[in-house]
Amino acid sequence: VAARDPAAIDALITPLHPADIADLLEQVSDPVRAAWLRLWPSSIDGDVLSELYGDLREEVIGLLPDSVLQDAVRDLDSDDVVDLVEDLEDDQQEAILDVLAPSDRVAVEQALSFPEESAGRLMQREVVAAPEHWTVGEAIDYMRAHKRELPEQFYHLVLTDPRMKPVGYVTLGRIMSTARKTPLIELLEDSFRVIPATQHEDEVAYAFNQYHLISAPVVDDDGRLVGVITIDDAMNVLDDANEEDILRLAGVDEESSLNDRVIDTTKRRFPWLFVNLITAILASLVISQFEAAISQIVALAVLMPIVASMGGNAGTQSLTVAVRALATKDLTRSNLLRVVLREAGVGLINGLVFAVVMGVIGVLWFGSPMLGVVIAVAMVINLLVAGLAGILVPVILERLRVDPALASGAFVTTVTDVVGFFAFLGLAVVLLL
Amino acid sequence: VAARDPAAIDALITPLHPADIADLLEQVSDPVRAAWLRLWPSSIDGDVLSELYGDLREEVIGLLPDSVLQDAVRDLDSDDVVDLVEDLEDDQQEAILDVLAPSDRVAVEQALSFPEESAGRLMQREVVAAPEHWTVGEAIDYMRAHKRELPEQFYHLVLTDPRMKPVGYVTLGRIMSTARKTPLIELLEDSFRVIPATQHEDEVAYAFNQYHLISAPVVDDDGRLVGVITIDDAMNVLDDANEEDILRLAGVDEESSLNDRVIDTTKRRFPWLFVNLITAILASLVISQFEAAISQIVALAVLMPIVASMGGNAGTQSLTVAVRALATKDLTRSNLLRVVLREAGVGLINGLVFAVVMGVIGVLWFGSPMLGVVIAVAMVINLLVAGLAGILVPVILERLRVDPALASGAFVTTVTDVVGFFAFLGLAVVLLL
Repeated sequence: VAARDPAAIDALITPLHPADIADLLEQVSDPVRAAWLRLWPSSIDGDVLSELYGDLREEVIGLLPDSVLQDAVRDLDSDDVVDLVEDLEDDQQEAILDVLAPSDRVAVEQALSFPEESAGRLMQREVVAAPEHWTVGEAIDYMRAHKRELPEQFYHLVLTDPRMKPVGYVTLGRIMSTARKTPLIELLEDSFRVIPATQHEDEVAYAFNQYHLISAPVVDDDGRLVGVITIDDAMNVLDDANEEDILRLAGVDEESSLNDRVIDTTKRRFPWLFVNLITAILASLVISQFEAAISQIVALAVLMPIVASMGGNAGTQSLTVAVRALATKDLTRSNLLRVVLREAGVGLINGLVFAVVMGVIGVLWFGSPMLGVVIAVAMVINLLVAGLAGILVPVILERLRVDPALASGAFVTTVTDVVGFFAFLGLAVVLLL
Repeated sequence: VAARDPAAIDALITPLHPADIADLLEQVSDPVRAAWLRLWPSSIDGDVLSELYGDLREEVIGLLPDSVLQDAVRDLDSDDVVDLVEDLEDDQQEAILDVLAPSDRVAVEQALSFPEESAGRLMQREVVAAPEHWTVGEAIDYMRAHKRELPEQFYHLVLTDPRMKPVGYVTLGRIMSTARKTPLIELLEDSFRVIPATQHEDEVAYAFNQYHLISAPVVDDDGRLVGVITIDDAMNVLDDANEEDILRLAGVDEESSLNDRVIDTTKRRFPWLFVNLITAILASLVISQFEAAISQIVALAVLMPIVASMGGNAGTQSLTVAVRALATKDLTRSNLLRVVLREAGVGLINGLVFAVVMGVIGVLWFGSPMLGVVIAVAMVINLLVAGLAGILVPVILERLRVDPALASGAFVTTVTDVVGFFAFLGLAVVLLL
């Protein structure tokens, strides 16, 4: 690209998979990307656009000539077009819908009528279905006659009743290995599940993962077949949900990429740092209540961050396990009490072990047995509280319908900081002064 | 289960999916689980065993009568048996291998000969392949004739040359919708990729996710077809890898479940807390160098945790983004410099904003403009360092072949604590005393 040599770019790019081209586009610097799109826009087809993440996709669509954009969009399945246009500004969305064939446009607009992040947005409308009374031979003949209308990838034939309600599905492997006269209804798989079009995509991904589904028919409110979701779409959703959880646990919300502008990233990280500032100031207010004690025994100022830091870490461990268990539905009402007791037990045991370690260090470092006792007792209290807060805060947030991955960290850290400083400094006042 | 009524259990359990039965087994308390297995062992079939996580699976296998175990294992595909036995103790492994048919036993033992977490362990050996010169009709006739030997689920027919090297694959949908006399070689998909049996499963999962594969043939060192990996297995690996990353970032290594015994969980969380203790003590050593300053201005003790805490949080944000970008291969040599500069920019801007905020708070709270300057400058320094450490530490660990998710947190926190306390207290000594 640096040499501005279209032929060389052509030779380099053409053998690459669209996903790799998209990655390359994401990794090059802004001027290189602009030059690439200006000199060689036709290297960007619909599949490459699908692979780009949100912000960059908008940018690239804005830079592409209309003719290239039209070619790119026409090749895509309806679910990919929906994925492409749903996050775009209205005028860009309109521009893309305009170039679609009328029937495709209707399909995309219907999908867009379902709520964001619902199964209806995720599904593709191209679904291969057959009446429930058909035989293997009839199904094969039908597919041969309509091969142009079949989706690029499909794995099951959905059987429907006369009112278009799905009654089951048959794998292609089973159809192909069975004699032509066999009725399809005898080959039904027992893994069959239908997905309501309004179901949230996270629930869809959970079902695919839990029940090892490969594809599942989607139905509307009346139970009629409207589309199909395949495992690759579900896998993407699951991957995105996990990614979101990881970032949210670290206080990074909706960061889409390493390529966002510095100012956007700064803005996205700011709120969590601000929340952290509030919690840190709360902890400082606790410390300021004990200024007199600290000015008498400066060792307290040296040791107090240790108690708070250990509590914060133990709390983060518990809350991360809890947030994951909630996400995978392993933590439910039925085992909540046992899990809470378990976390309390873990906090208590680790608290006791570190109490001994820190008690000894306190005595050796500052030569004061009583200071050792203070830090030891404070350590037990804070690690026990950390374990309890780590499990209870996410559970309570989940009940309040707040995403526990997003908000738990701030609350748990506040609890462990405040309890840690208060227990340590308060005990010091009682036992040392 | 509480009422010890097998008929009632039967009625409750039978309609459930094996994955849900496994979840139920995981969520009930130990005595209930033991009673369930004693009263009604036949509710546990091979699919349920496959769904149980490691430790509990060993426990359940130990409690099941041999006859139930034998029935359970015989139903499974070879990849599921491998997954079932690979983590078992030698004697339990032997017991299960003994009940397999000789040909299955050979298949499982061959799979076990591949390294742990390799494609060879993940693949199933039941693969549907055809010579490259066959036509659609020949393939269908072959599958009808050998329907008993076909795997439960398959989506592609792999074409091989006479030396059993895969040359491409054809989707079942394409075969079914094409006239019988068409040669298969004309229907090849261009998404075709082969996977070496020794490739690490994380790389396999990356390839499936990046290239939207549904299944991919596995080849041995000589390039010969030895098995096939399907997307559901790859999805499991990806999900596990994400889960591991999330837990490791929080300092929780290899925690498999909420059901582990308290003592096991305590042991697993202990090492990270111990590492954290070391880093906290390092920070305390820095503070102890400034005891004289703190005893003169106690406000320093009150404010110093704020600087350290903000640095720790900003560092965690950067490192989490960096660890994820490394995992998804979005952070490479080619964009490293730009990403580092970007993180430095983000740290600098947020540092400046919070410097102003904290400077004002410092002045208002303690009435000392110079104290405001000290905390403001320390904040800028620490947030800048946090951004740089957050990106450089994971990158360096990755180069050293240490899992960045596991170790980055400790290093980054140490850096931000030490720099935070040193900058704040050091500046205070220079400017205030």
